[in-house]
Amino acid sequence: MPIGEISGMSHIPLRPIAALALLVCARTALAQPADAIPAKYRDVANRIIAAAQADSSGAWDRIAELSDRFGHRLSGSVALEQAIDWTVATMRKDGLENVRKERVMVPHWVRGAESLELVSPRRQLLPMLGLGGSIATPAAGITAEVMVVASFEELTARAAEAKGKIVLYDAEWRDYGYNGAFRRQGAIAAAKVGAVASLARAAGPYSMRTPHTGNMSYDSTVTKIPHASVTAEDAQMMRRMIARGERVRVTLKMSAQMLPDAVSHNVMGELRGRDLPNEIVVMGGHIDSWDVGQGAMDDAGGVVVAWEAIRLLKKLGLTPRRTIRAVGWTNEENGGRGGAAYRDLHKQEPHQLAIESDGGVFQPLGFGFTGSAESRKVVEAIGGLLAPIGAQRIGPSGGGADINPLMQTGVPGMGLEVDGTRYFWFHHTDADTPDKLDRKEVARCVAAMAVMAYIAADLEQRLTP
Amino acid sequence: MPIGEISGMSHIPLRPIAALALLVCARTALAQPADAIPAKYRDVANRIIAAAQADSSGAWDRIAELSDRFGHRLSGSVALEQAIDWTVATMRKDGLENVRKERVMVPHWVRGAESLELVSPRRQLLPMLGLGGSIATPAAGITAEVMVVASFEELTARAAEAKGKIVLYDAEWRDYGYNGAFRRQGAIAAAKVGAVASLARAAGPYSMRTPHTGNMSYDSTVTKIPHASVTAEDAQMMRRMIARGERVRVTLKMSAQMLPDAVSHNVMGELRGRDLPNEIVVMGGHIDSWDVGQGAMDDAGGVVVAWEAIRLLKKLGLTPRRTIRAVGWTNEENGGRGGAAYRDLHKQEPHQLAIESDGGVFQPLGFGFTGSAESRKVVEAIGGLLAPIGAQRIGPSGGGADINPLMQTGVPGMGLEVDGTRYFWFHHTDADTPDKLDRKEVARCVAAMAVMAYIAADLEQRLTP
Repeated sequence: MPIGEISGMSHIPLRPIAALALLVCARTALAQPADAIPAKYRDVANRIIAAAQADSSGAWDRIAELSDRFGHRLSGSVALEQAIDWTVATMRKDGLENVRKERVMVPHWVRGAESLELVSPRRQLLPMLGLGGSIATPAAGITAEVMVVASFEELTARAAEAKGKIVLYDAEWRDYGYNGAFRRQGAIAAAKVGAVASLARAAGPYSMRTPHTGNMSYDSTVTKIPHASVTAEDAQMMRRMIARGERVRVTLKMSAQMLPDAVSHNVMGELRGRDLPNEIVVMGGHIDSWDVGQGAMDDAGGVVVAWEAIRLLKKLGLTPRRTIRAVGWTNEENGGRGGAAYRDLHKQEPHQLAIESDGGVFQPLGFGFTGSAESRKVVEAIGGLLAPIGAQRIGPSGGGADINPLMQTGVPGMGLEVDGTRYFWFHHTDADTPDKLDRKEVARCVAAMAVMAYIAADLEQRLTP
Repeated sequence: MPIGEISGMSHIPLRPIAALALLVCARTALAQPADAIPAKYRDVANRIIAAAQADSSGAWDRIAELSDRFGHRLSGSVALEQAIDWTVATMRKDGLENVRKERVMVPHWVRGAESLELVSPRRQLLPMLGLGGSIATPAAGITAEVMVVASFEELTARAAEAKGKIVLYDAEWRDYGYNGAFRRQGAIAAAKVGAVASLARAAGPYSMRTPHTGNMSYDSTVTKIPHASVTAEDAQMMRRMIARGERVRVTLKMSAQMLPDAVSHNVMGELRGRDLPNEIVVMGGHIDSWDVGQGAMDDAGGVVVAWEAIRLLKKLGLTPRRTIRAVGWTNEENGGRGGAAYRDLHKQEPHQLAIESDGGVFQPLGFGFTGSAESRKVVEAIGGLLAPIGAQRIGPSGGGADINPLMQTGVPGMGLEVDGTRYFWFHHTDADTPDKLDRKEVARCVAAMAVMAYIAADLEQRLTP
C-alpha cells in the first residue's frame, strides 16, 4: 500500500443480506448505464464470475506459494529478484504471452541490527522497527529522555522541551493518512526542535505488541535523526510512566544503511489482443514488499489477482480486442521507481486503462475510477455486471502508486476497492501473511479484475482520462 | 490463567439489550433464591456497585501501575519480588490491615537467549517462545527436518517417520484445554517416537505472528527434549511448504535453565471482621506472570480487583462480621507453590469462602461456584444482586489454581467469570498489557468481588463445601 494512497479503502463489512440488497439495487439501477456497453457482456461477465468462483483455491494458493517461497521482498534484496524470476518462469508455464522482466534501478535500504531498550525507570527490551530510509544511530546507540506528544501541534507548543530528547509521537489511531504522517514526517519535525531521535507509535488500528514499518522522509534543510516505530502498547506505557512523574529514558540502536542503487525489475505477461494488440489494458500490483512478514497482502495479492485474471480469461478462451497486461511493479514501497520506469518505457503505447490492486485482496466492493464522465458511464456499466459478487461500486476516484505516473500521461486509472476493515492491522507488519486472506474473497477479486479488464479491453470505444 | 482451568471462561459478549434482558430476567428469577439472604443486602449491594462505578479509573490505573512499574514477573525474578514489596507498601498506605508477605520457595526457570531459524527451503528467523520448564538445546542448536502433525493421533499413526526429526504440532484452535495439550504434553509424545525436539503452534485463537508461552511437562520415563511455541502463521507456512514437497529444516537454539528454587512470597492484606475476625473470606489472583508482556490480565487484574474491593468496602465504612483477605498468590504459572503454601499455613483458619479471579478482568458475568446445594442457594441470592452490572450468573463449578489446594481441605470455592472472548488472544503473550482492559469493565469486576465477598463474610450462616 502506497504512502497516502487510501482512497480505495472501505470499512463496510459485507453481510449476506446487505450483499443481496446491493445486488437487487444494482440490477434496478443498471437500466440506465447498461446502455453504455453492449448487452452481450452480461453473459461474458457471468461466465468469468462462475469460473473464478469454481476455482476458489488457485489464486490463494499462488499468493501463499509466492509468499512462502520468497518471504518478504524489499527492494535490493535477493529474495525480490528471485521472486521476479520465479514469476517470469511461472507466467511462461501458465501460457501468458510476452512474459518478461524490465530492468529498474531501485534504492537499496537495509535495516541491519536494531533494538530499543527502556533503561529507566526500569530496563526492558521493547519491540520496534526502524522506519524505511532512516539513518543509523552511533554504534553505542542514542540514550536520551523520552518526550511524549500526541500531535505535531503539541510538539510545536512544547518545542522548548525537546532539545536533546527522543520525541515519541503517541497518537490514537484515526486513519492511515493522519497517523502515517508521524511516520513520514516525524523525524523532520522532531529534528527541527532539537530532538536527537524520534519514535512513532505504530500506524495501525490494532496491535498485539506490533510495530509497523513503512517509509519515512528527511528534509535537506534539517538534520537527519534516526526514526523508528514502537508499538501502541509501549507508546501508551511510556506516556503513563511520564504522567506518573517518572523520567523515561531509552537506548535506541539502529544500524540501517542506504546502499548504492540496486538492479531490480518490473515483471509482466500478457493476453495479446485479437484486433488491437498494441493497445493496452494494464493491471497489477507491486512485487516488492517491506522487509517484515511475507508481503502477502501488500502486495503479492495484487500481482497474483491480475495474473490469475489473465489465466482465467485464457482458460475460458476469451480474447479481447486489445491486449491485457498483468504487471508486478517493483519498488512501490520505498521509491516508486517501478511505476516511473513503466511509464518511461511504455508511455508510447496507447493505454486504454490502468488498474491497480494495492489495498489487500479482501472482499471486493468495486473500483475507484479517475477518468472522463463519459468513460465513467462505461465503467459503471461494467461495474454493474459485478453485482453478483458485491463488487459493483464505482468510487469517485481511483489509481495507485504504481500507475499514477502512467495516469499522469493521460491514461484513465482505477484502483480495486475492497473491504479494508483489517488491512491496516497487518499492513507493514510481521503479520502480513497469507492466512489473513480468504480463499473465496481472493477468487472474487480475480473475477472483478478479469471482468473489468476483459470488457475494457474488448470495447469498441476508447476510454478517456 | 492456570493450566486446564477454563471452566470460568465464557464467550458471550454482552450487548446493551442482552444486558437489559438479563437484568429483567434476573429480577424476576430473584423472587425465590432471594429468601436465602436478608433483604437488607440489596441496598448494600447497590451502594457498593454505585461506588465502584463512580470510581471507574482507580482499579484500572492500579493494574497499569503494577504492570508498568515491574513488567512481567516470573517466579524467581527480581521484578516479582519488587512487585510484592510494592504491593505490601501500597496496601499499607491504603489502610488495609495485617498486610504481610509470606515466604514461599518457588521453581526458578529462566528462558535465556533463544531462536528458531528456518534454514531450508530458505532462511528466515521465526518468532518463537521456549515453553516454560523446557531444557536447553546444545549451544550450536538442533538442526533437523520438521515433521508436521495436526494431532497426537496423527503422530502415533506416523510414529515411524519421527525419528531424528523436530515434531511440529499444528492444530487449528478449538479451545485452551485441547490446544494447550500440545504445549503441555507435546515434548513427551514427540520424544517417545524418537523426535529430537518439538514445536507447538501457539495455543491461542488469534495471532499477529504471536507465539504463546506457558508451562510444559516432562515424564521421568521419557527422554527430555526441548519444546517451544511457534506462531500459527509459521506453523501453517511450514505445513504448506511440506505439502508442496519441500523438505523443511529448522535450527532451534534454546539456553533455558532450571535454577535452584528461589525465595518468593504470597502477599496479602485484610479488612478485619467485626464479630468473627478469625473466620476468613479469601479472594485474589496471582502476582506472578509469564516472562512476556506485562502480565496485566494474567493476573495483575485478579490481584488488583480483590485489593480494590477491600479498599472500596473500607471507603464505604462497610465492615462485615468475618474478615476479608485479599491475596496475591505467587508461582501460579509454573509450580502452584503459592496456593499450596497458603493452604499449609492457613488451613487451620476457618474459611467461609475462597474466590479467585484468573480469567482476565473483562466484563464480569458472575461466578462459578463449588459448594453444597444449600450454600449454592445463598450464593445465587447474592449473585442476583449483581444483575445491575450483568454479573448475576452462578455457574455449576468454580475455583482456581491458587485456591484449589485450600478448597480440597473443605472450603467452598468460586471463580470470577467474565466475557473471555479475547482473553486467549493475549494470555501468555507479549500482548498481555493493560490497554487490552476496559476501565468500566474492571470497575464492574471490583463491584462483583466486593459484593460477593462482603455479603459472604457478613452472613449469619456458614457456607459449606
